[in-house]
Amino acid sequence: MTPDPVPGTLDRIDHVAIAVRDIAEAVAWYTKNFRCTITYQDATWAFLEFENTMLALVIPEQHPPHFAFTSPDAAAFGPLKTHRDGTRSTYVRDPAGNSVEIMAAD
Amino acid sequence: MTPDPVPGTLDRIDHVAIAVRDIAEAVAWYTKNFRCTITYQDATWAFLEFENTMLALVIPEQHPPHFAFTSPDAAAFGPLKTHRDGTRSTYVRDPAGNSVEIMAAD
Repeated sequence: MTPDPVPGTLDRIDHVAIAVRDIAEAVAWYTKNFRCTITYQDATWAFLEFENTMLALVIPEQHPPHFAFTSPDAAAFGPLKTHRDGTRSTYVRDPAGNSVEIMAAD
Repeated sequence: MTPDPVPGTLDRIDHVAIAVRDIAEAVAWYTKNFRCTITYQDATWAFLEFENTMLALVIPEQHPPHFAFTSPDAAAFGPLKTHRDGTRSTYVRDPAGNSVEIMAAD
């Protein structure tokens, strides 16, 4: 076990989005098996809050599975798009092709 | 934005493991682009610490991509295996077939 990092010295993982075949079925399974809170749900995706980060459940045809980091240098990765909830982000790919969202830390 | 949950009332996401093609290449990319700490690295996998959770980089032939939750009810999911670092866990699959590790919260 490593000690907890000093707050603010490392970047955060804001959320992780995984592919499921049916949103309602997946929400039912995750909320039955884990202590989490549904913060959004429709037919194409859902957002579950855990103690330390968020889990997004997505249908791959509608939203790509991805990771989202918060970074104070987000704008260095590309033009930031402002979303409906006020957050700003851009997408890049890691060397293996994984889709990575980079959100402004402010 | 939702308020932070009361500590201890929701389960934690201990780590997330994603597939990459080359561990050293991926470690170089993530540590160059994000503020994170390498807590383990060999030729088949690496563990990166972020502020709120851990990111594991794995070669899919060696380790399956998965999520790990901590749960006070971990033993209810199956017999717990004790790992070298003293943690105990079991694996299940969600309805879509995603591999989910459930770690004892203690």
